[in-house]
Amino acid sequence: MIKHLLSGADLDADTATEILDTAAEMATVAGREIKKLPALRGRTVVNLFYEDSTRTRISFEAAAKRLSADVINFSAKGSSVTKGESLKDTALTLQAMGADAVVVRHPASGAPHRLANWVDGSVVNAGDGTHEHPTQALLDAYTMRARLGRLAGLSVAVVGDVLHSRVARSNVLLLSTLGAKVTLVGPPTLIPVDIAGALAPAIDVSYDLDSVLPGVDVVMMLRVQRERMNDSYFPSAREYARRYGLDGPRMRRLPEHAIVMHPGPMNRGMEITPEVADSPRSTIVEQVTNGVSVRMAVLYLLLGGNNR
Amino acid sequence: MIKHLLSGADLDADTATEILDTAAEMATVAGREIKKLPALRGRTVVNLFYEDSTRTRISFEAAAKRLSADVINFSAKGSSVTKGESLKDTALTLQAMGADAVVVRHPASGAPHRLANWVDGSVVNAGDGTHEHPTQALLDAYTMRARLGRLAGLSVAVVGDVLHSRVARSNVLLLSTLGAKVTLVGPPTLIPVDIAGALAPAIDVSYDLDSVLPGVDVVMMLRVQRERMNDSYFPSAREYARRYGLDGPRMRRLPEHAIVMHPGPMNRGMEITPEVADSPRSTIVEQVTNGVSVRMAVLYLLLGGNNR
Amino acid sequence: MIKHLLSGADLDADTATEILDTAAEMATVAGREIKKLPALRGRTVVNLFYEDSTRTRISFEAAAKRLSADVINFSAKGSSVTKGESLKDTALTLQAMGADAVVVRHPASGAPHRLANWVDGSVVNAGDGTHEHPTQALLDAYTMRARLGRLAGLSVAVVGDVLHSRVARSNVLLLSTLGAKVTLVGPPTLIPVDIAGALAPAIDVSYDLDSVLPGVDVVMMLRVQRERMNDSYFPSAREYARRYGLDGPRMRRLPEHAIVMHPGPMNRGMEITPEVADSPRSTIVEQVTNGVSVRMAVLYLLLGGNNR
Repeated sequence: MIKHLLSGADLDADTATEILDTAAEMATVAGREIKKLPALRGRTVVNLFYEDSTRTRISFEAAAKRLSADVINFSAKGSSVTKGESLKDTALTLQAMGADAVVVRHPASGAPHRLANWVDGSVVNAGDGTHEHPTQALLDAYTMRARLGRLAGLSVAVVGDVLHSRVARSNVLLLSTLGAKVTLVGPPTLIPVDIAGALAPAIDVSYDLDSVLPGVDVVMMLRVQRERMNDSYFPSAREYARRYGLDGPRMRRLPEHAIVMHPGPMNRGMEITPEVADSPRSTIVEQVTNGVSVRMAVLYLLLGGNNR
Repeated sequence: MIKHLLSGADLDADTATEILDTAAEMATVAGREIKKLPALRGRTVVNLFYEDSTRTRISFEAAAKRLSADVINFSAKGSSVTKGESLKDTALTLQAMGADAVVVRHPASGAPHRLANWVDGSVVNAGDGTHEHPTQALLDAYTMRARLGRLAGLSVAVVGDVLHSRVARSNVLLLSTLGAKVTLVGPPTLIPVDIAGALAPAIDVSYDLDSVLPGVDVVMMLRVQRERMNDSYFPSAREYARRYGLDGPRMRRLPEHAIVMHPGPMNRGMEITPEVADSPRSTIVEQVTNGVSVRMAVLYLLLGGNNR
Repeated sequence: MIKHLLSGADLDADTATEILDTAAEMATVAGREIKKLPALRGRTVVNLFYEDSTRTRISFEAAAKRLSADVINFSAKGSSVTKGESLKDTALTLQAMGADAVVVRHPASGAPHRLANWVDGSVVNAGDGTHEHPTQALLDAYTMRARLGRLAGLSVAVVGDVLHSRVARSNVLLLSTLGAKVTLVGPPTLIPVDIAGALAPAIDVSYDLDSVLPGVDVVMMLRVQRERMNDSYFPSAREYARRYGLDGPRMRRLPEHAIVMHPGPMNRGMEITPEVADSPRSTIVEQVTNGVSVRMAVLYLLLGGNNR
């Protein structure tokens, strides 16, 4: 097993599959049939969040607690960070306090990688800048496999602001590893010519959502970050929703079996309409549940469970 | 047992009494004679607070932990809420993560009721706008019963800004159910003509605290919310304290056995003087202790303890 | 054993030594060889922080959790404190909720002492104003003893803004009790004439770091609080670093066996250079680890472990 989980590229097919299989076992706990496992009793997981992300923090916190780990939340706002302490000194401090794993969210791309150089414990990237969010990719893969029975050969459209999306980036890397076919869809300014090839070979690009939908098994809508809406490379909100938002008529162009995914939180009415979000095709709520299972599996495997 | 606790009106006399009796058993744990019960081991309680209320949050957190539940705190400040996520999507997310109970504090009256429509787990209203705060009413009833031996037939004066008080509202509903006689006391602008009847039949209203005191078993002082002091329907601070504040001379007009209650935090010198707050008649500290017992009982009964 | 830990002066030599010896036993847990002890199972430790100090809060939280206590974090920001509740009422509330220990950080010197008058549980001072920070002194003493084998007879230089440093104050008191010889070093405006004698007899003062270094076993660099840098009694940043910062050449004036300490978080390049901070002489990371052990020992001894 790998020691850190920093990038979708850290995962070869065997490792990714081991995580997904372990997550499937964890699902009996995450789904609350079994309430709690003692696997990580006495281990300390630190949630080191330099950006607010209640949703991701709670998911990791719930995952760690169901494995009986102790969880310490460290919101970098109003911390010694504001006294000018470096990321390195913070990392060394957490390690010195006995953190077995550090789950880190950071606005700077690459921060978790730097952290991993400094600490002996495991580092899990919970989102770094516009770079990566590998547990999101794992829970998305888990959800596709659970709904559609396989990953190899699936056709997946990833739709929206690919340029700035760590979710897209990690998904492209992992899905390519696992044999799915990815098509990036969005405005030309948000899918630069060279991005697809730079991420993985054999990625398709399209600027026309309607033409892509009939041929996919999965359509993954990215969250529109409204704070980017004023950027020059971004269409207006109305124009964006009209061309790249998923509404009922568009959803009905999908094959019968296709599913609709979204990492949340949604902008209902922007990239996705309520009709779609709440339809039986939508896996949005399952993704959240699967997120706890996948993060349990990641923490369990990285920390070596009871056997380390 | 009810599934949610949203309002004092959810509680019939039998249910309320079952909660109070269970709280009395829990008091051996809340009072720290027994340190901890395994009843809710593996259950997850989420404190979903859209308003700051450290006191109430800590009380629920202590209650849940003494029952061995895992507690996840979710302060809506700086959360995905600020990214525009709806209450419904937040609710579905928490449920998907496996929350067994959601304790919610929200500035909008009715928010916990809406939440309860969306989730399968239990919802406990920890205060919604100016509407209700039912566990406060339960702990107040518990305290009266513990001090005075009964609830039926007690005469209770609720004094202050009744119009805006969720504490008053929940107390009136519950005390009426349990057979106590409530008199609302305060400035006419803060006790509208129709409020008493709208809450429960047979509620008395008085604008003269001094005339009420000699006949009551309990006087419950409401917190003055200073931010309302500039409202036109509010007397000046000095005038308010003079007419509706409880000081030593007024306290001595009470019958020998009568008790003084306050939900905290107090404005010492405004609605209550230090002499009164710290007197043996005051139950203010007991109310806090009883709050933990009552919230243990509510969580235990709603979540079905080990038997669910 | 003492009931509260408020000041370095609370500790006589026997008590301090008992804490250090207990911390050495706790180190097998803090160092993660043993994962967790059941000693404080069911006890509740409240971290009551009126100032941000993530580092100290996490250290106490990790210590309490490794002893199986329940931990409740209470950040006074956005709490009922902002509604005007007094420290006394907050204290009574926490006690009423069953807090067995309150760990308090407060901007006002003396606040923990006042708290200790109001509650039955134990109070641990986690830093009050410019006054004291006794667990920091204990972890510093622990670190010296672990590195150098003894405390009695050690020569310790405490360097920097002694006037405003609670770390310096607690260290001077404790080290004097344990038989070490302390020299305060810094600009004259930051070491008033009477401070040394007021703290403890037989404290030396020097304004010349270079002349002190060759004769010490320990040099403890204090954190420069940049917000004080504009004060009239403070030299410029450049001047401060030049005269009182510890860099490589200065470090090499120390005896072979001497160690360099810093309570963290460091201002690298101000009071200490990276070369020194990261050198083998530096105990900065060990201090953090020892902090968890020492706080485990303090909580264990104050709360009486399983035997109370």
